[in-house]
Amino acid sequence: MRPSGRTPDQARDVKIIRHFTSHAEGSVLVCFGNTQVICTATVEKGVPRWLNGKGQGWITAEYGMLPRSTHSRNAREATRGKQGGRTLEIQRLIGRSLRSVVDLNKLGEFTITLDCDVIQADGGTRTASITGACVALVDALRHLQLNKQIKTDPFRQFISSVSVGIYKGVPVLDLDYPEDSGCETDMNVVMTEAGQFIEVQGTAEGQPFSRDEMNAMLELAEKGCRELIELQKQALEQP
Amino acid sequence: MRPSGRTPDQARDVKIIRHFTSHAEGSVLVCFGNTQVICTATVEKGVPRWLNGKGQGWITAEYGMLPRSTHSRNAREATRGKQGGRTLEIQRLIGRSLRSVVDLNKLGEFTITLDCDVIQADGGTRTASITGACVALVDALRHLQLNKQIKTDPFRQFISSVSVGIYKGVPVLDLDYPEDSGCETDMNVVMTEAGQFIEVQGTAEGQPFSRDEMNAMLELAEKGCRELIELQKQALEQP
Amino acid sequence: MRPSGRTPDQARDVKIIRHFTSHAEGSVLVCFGNTQVICTATVEKGVPRWLNGKGQGWITAEYGMLPRSTHSRNAREATRGKQGGRTLEIQRLIGRSLRSVVDLNKLGEFTITLDCDVIQADGGTRTASITGACVALVDALRHLQLNKQIKTDPFRQFISSVSVGIYKGVPVLDLDYPEDSGCETDMNVVMTEAGQFIEVQGTAEGQPFSRDEMNAMLELAEKGCRELIELQKQALEQP
Amino acid sequence: MRPSGRTPDQARDVKIIRHFTSHAEGSVLVCFGNTQVICTATVEKGVPRWLNGKGQGWITAEYGMLPRSTHSRNAREATRGKQGGRTLEIQRLIGRSLRSVVDLNKLGEFTITLDCDVIQADGGTRTASITGACVALVDALRHLQLNKQIKTDPFRQFISSVSVGIYKGVPVLDLDYPEDSGCETDMNVVMTEAGQFIEVQGTAEGQPFSRDEMNAMLELAEKGCRELIELQKQALEQP
Amino acid sequence: MRPSGRTPDQARDVKIIRHFTSHAEGSVLVCFGNTQVICTATVEKGVPRWLNGKGQGWITAEYGMLPRSTHSRNAREATRGKQGGRTLEIQRLIGRSLRSVVDLNKLGEFTITLDCDVIQADGGTRTASITGACVALVDALRHLQLNKQIKTDPFRQFISSVSVGIYKGVPVLDLDYPEDSGCETDMNVVMTEAGQFIEVQGTAEGQPFSRDEMNAMLELAEKGCRELIELQKQALEQP
Amino acid sequence: MRPSGRTPDQARDVKIIRHFTSHAEGSVLVCFGNTQVICTATVEKGVPRWLNGKGQGWITAEYGMLPRSTHSRNAREATRGKQGGRTLEIQRLIGRSLRSVVDLNKLGEFTITLDCDVIQADGGTRTASITGACVALVDALRHLQLNKQIKTDPFRQFISSVSVGIYKGVPVLDLDYPEDSGCETDMNVVMTEAGQFIEVQGTAEGQPFSRDEMNAMLELAEKGCRELIELQKQALEQP
Repeated sequence: MRPSGRTPDQARDVKIIRHFTSHAEGSVLVCFGNTQVICTATVEKGVPRWLNGKGQGWITAEYGMLPRSTHSRNAREATRGKQGGRTLEIQRLIGRSLRSVVDLNKLGEFTITLDCDVIQADGGTRTASITGACVALVDALRHLQLNKQIKTDPFRQFISSVSVGIYKGVPVLDLDYPEDSGCETDMNVVMTEAGQFIEVQGTAEGQPFSRDEMNAMLELAEKGCRELIELQKQALEQP
Repeated sequence: MRPSGRTPDQARDVKIIRHFTSHAEGSVLVCFGNTQVICTATVEKGVPRWLNGKGQGWITAEYGMLPRSTHSRNAREATRGKQGGRTLEIQRLIGRSLRSVVDLNKLGEFTITLDCDVIQADGGTRTASITGACVALVDALRHLQLNKQIKTDPFRQFISSVSVGIYKGVPVLDLDYPEDSGCETDMNVVMTEAGQFIEVQGTAEGQPFSRDEMNAMLELAEKGCRELIELQKQALEQP
Repeated sequence: MRPSGRTPDQARDVKIIRHFTSHAEGSVLVCFGNTQVICTATVEKGVPRWLNGKGQGWITAEYGMLPRSTHSRNAREATRGKQGGRTLEIQRLIGRSLRSVVDLNKLGEFTITLDCDVIQADGGTRTASITGACVALVDALRHLQLNKQIKTDPFRQFISSVSVGIYKGVPVLDLDYPEDSGCETDMNVVMTEAGQFIEVQGTAEGQPFSRDEMNAMLELAEKGCRELIELQKQALEQP
Repeated sequence: MRPSGRTPDQARDVKIIRHFTSHAEGSVLVCFGNTQVICTATVEKGVPRWLNGKGQGWITAEYGMLPRSTHSRNAREATRGKQGGRTLEIQRLIGRSLRSVVDLNKLGEFTITLDCDVIQADGGTRTASITGACVALVDALRHLQLNKQIKTDPFRQFISSVSVGIYKGVPVLDLDYPEDSGCETDMNVVMTEAGQFIEVQGTAEGQPFSRDEMNAMLELAEKGCRELIELQKQALEQP
Repeated sequence: MRPSGRTPDQARDVKIIRHFTSHAEGSVLVCFGNTQVICTATVEKGVPRWLNGKGQGWITAEYGMLPRSTHSRNAREATRGKQGGRTLEIQRLIGRSLRSVVDLNKLGEFTITLDCDVIQADGGTRTASITGACVALVDALRHLQLNKQIKTDPFRQFISSVSVGIYKGVPVLDLDYPEDSGCETDMNVVMTEAGQFIEVQGTAEGQPFSRDEMNAMLELAEKGCRELIELQKQALEQP
Repeated sequence: MRPSGRTPDQARDVKIIRHFTSHAEGSVLVCFGNTQVICTATVEKGVPRWLNGKGQGWITAEYGMLPRSTHSRNAREATRGKQGGRTLEIQRLIGRSLRSVVDLNKLGEFTITLDCDVIQADGGTRTASITGACVALVDALRHLQLNKQIKTDPFRQFISSVSVGIYKGVPVLDLDYPEDSGCETDMNVVMTEAGQFIEVQGTAEGQPFSRDEMNAMLELAEKGCRELIELQKQALEQP
């Protein structure tokens, strides 16, 4: 039924490759099937002006797509002179999600910027970004601890993210591009390792969805997020 | 328990005043308590370029806040030279929601723009905007029918929107500003008169929320949206 | 002769409603006939950088129109990414006019921003803005005195503003939109309660005007401004 | 009494040099004392989109200052990414003034752009710009007639512009920078050769001005503009 | 002598990986040592407006760096709202270079856009970009021929690019970042397979260079470019 | 053979007029034939933020063209909202070149900005700008010494700049516009009075150039630059 031949509750193959580029304190290539995102975590001293002197840190995120990461070329946002609404929406989501798993007081006056740059897109770029950025973030926090720049670990718990939706009437997990562009409803879920929700964003693209459909989708999301957190932990066990 | 003295499942007083300004095809002042939004619907011939020749119409939305609609003054977006991420996110939500209740083929090659301008803010500006814009939209569609510019009514069904959240551990309906800025979780819900979901956007500002909390919030949202649709219909029965 | 049936020296009905919105230190809805403008005065500590340490305050103004305040919709300036020339010209005029009636040394290091937002336009939005903003400014200055933030009243005198013009060869007072778009000459005048001029801006849209016509227009403007100052004072006598 | 030693009704030495640069259809260097402005008139086929098919032409203007035309350096507007409010205000004034002396129907579907670029500023740049641009415009219209691109002369009459003001209590003609920055009132006047007004823009920088002061200023302006038109005509009699 | 231990005339290890991402008509990862650039070639129907109807095609390029491709994070150009001068300079160079090796008349009304996005920077990003983009361009041209969209091969000859410089008084080939930031003179050279020059851009960062030094650098550049063209050809022999 | 009738190694007539405008510390009109550029040098206290506290100064440049300095009118960059790639490239070149001849430590914490504004263009605007800006810079440095703001002369040596190219197969010196737009290769060279190179930027517009052609061009450039430095020195000997 699914274009990819997957079963409804089957996520795509996931790869999480750490130390993908060399300069960043955390650098991860995350692949959800053919979707590939480079997630880097940059540690900088200091905080935005409005946090000055409060003794706490800050986590923020930026998102971008290479112009030809998509089927047809999208104009470069740097050329158009501004980030589009979709981009801003996604990077606000990434930043908000990852802020929720860090104790900003323990972080101290550091800012960590998570850059998620899509080099190949096939649906689910924002969920892959959150999942990969969480791993890059852990590496950056380890870096700060190794260098004795912070004393205690500000990391609270893992989060991961996956999309679910109603495709041809059936609730499915981890939509790829053909499903994403053809589905009735699309929902992005961010969950903690304790199985609670950080974000739930469901949108009826085609037709409204019922409470029952919502429940079915949330169940799939829980399964998907649990599997992803397993993979994040495995990746971080590598040296 | 609530700063306003309301019970957990009690929404604020709502006013929906049609024909609020004189030039627009639909013009509504909507008040959710102290939150006041002017929602106008503008009908223009033609569609965006990418829809040319497809014989269908388009619905879009823009959102803004007067600089001193808030407790302290916010810089005017026209002065800063761009709309912020929050603004873009909200106007994309309004546009998407209202597009879902109009049969764009029946609308024909017209564009309807919903401008939602907040003149006083006290929490829930996006939910008030959607609720008011739906009424302005109906007036604009009636205008098109009265002028014989379209033959059949493209309107599918009413939608309304309300916020719910977890405030001091208790699920509450229709958060005002003091609740909004202090709550653990905030969820905006857009529902149809048939009781189905168009949008569900839940965010854990403070701490993650459980499945049970989500269910409690959705129940409150259903109650709130049902009441709002009742008020929309009453307003539209006036001449 | 006039489309509205008014006599040449007859201004439109004027309403000045204070405390129109709740957050601003001064908030006025001013109506010149169908022209409606929300004027808020915001008090903020501090002054622009180039005034730092001079011990004086600053008054500035911003102007905007809701997209559908006009007969056909105007693109939102926040969306276009900049304020247009007409907007900048008007807000510079409002700011300059109101600066002239405040003793900036007595104000001390506070900035007062006057936001004039047109919600319905029918000619004369800039003159209504100045007239309404003057009332909002007085409320803001009263607020500063009540809170003991300043000791003496920096307000020098009232100003009001009205348009005059040559319409079908006849000098007329307070042009509405049909007159404004059809007149030969249009002049905006800002006057003090002592009957002197702050600004005179006359433009021959159609054909040049003579010295005699100028004199006739200035006489009408004096009458109109005098009446407006009476109404400003009445409004401010309300509690 | 005047810093320059001039009598109150004495304008500065004026130079109007045609054919100042070689590419433009009209190119004039105009000097009001130390104020120097290059005014070029460019003829282009076609009109702005909103005039398409109406068979009439268009006149528009742009204004700029070289960064170091002033006492201290002003940031280049191209670098700041936008034209400031003062610039927009001035170029709107120049364009409006010169449009008023051309029969746009006789011009046909041509656009003439007047670029006024200040290379040295000492007060009165906008009045010098209008005065010089009028001469460049005549040259451009002659060019169109010589090339048989238009049949009849669209030029209606000469205009010139000069500033007047109240300096140390005395009405004076043609303010230079030291007067301009120290005066109580500043008025820019644009007049036709028939002695009528196109624009009158008076601003009380310091203190309000009376009707009598206004009359005294207008008299000076009439004298100044008459003299300038004489010089424009002399310049245009050169081959 | 060189920080990397290379001999003066030794280039870094080069990798050219085709089909690096899946959507683009040409997609190459090029590595000059630790410098890694993704070069994609996108084919689109149509040409820029100013080429309409001339029957020829167009080649253009855009360049970007991921924010953390560098030692410390650079602000994202999309966030800053414009491309910087260095970026524009580089992408103009890439576009100009590759335009010179394509017969635009044979290309017909297609536009090929070369996007060069640096994912890891260690000096020489512009020379790597040109070298990699040339391979991506060949793949895109092959794609057009395979699909019978063009009949004859518009490709004239290979080009490659390398940097040379004077480092600690010695002419060296292919500067890495430590050399680039410490050298006296830096020169980027683009050459054809016939051994002629397309671009020579030499800059004395520290102290002026002599004619002899220039000759020594050009000799190294010839060697480097020849080797690179060999590698481009090898890469393109793979299926 | 050359459109102007010049011999291949003959530069255009050059004029260097100092004190061209009155406000700047250095102000030069430089003419290379019909190319005319106003170069001003502005001295300001302070340095860019990233140089704060290092005790050294800074030299920077900006470049612009009056809209009708060219054959057909170019849109004003201030109106378009940004400087184009060509402009940025040229002003970076001017700034870099002049920085190379000043000992920034001796300059102390002053910034000198060189504004090069083209009032008439006929090819070679960037080379004329560098040549003229060098003279304006010397005047500005003399000004600083006269006012005892610096103790020792930071000027190292003269630089000048000229273009060379291959036009109809023949190497020529100092291309004017007809040559520039029709040549095969165009090279801009910046040289010191000691006969060494600061910048060499050669571009094959039409067809690649050989090593021999490059040598022939460099020889012409040396001759041209030597002559220009002679003229710079003569101009600076005037009082």
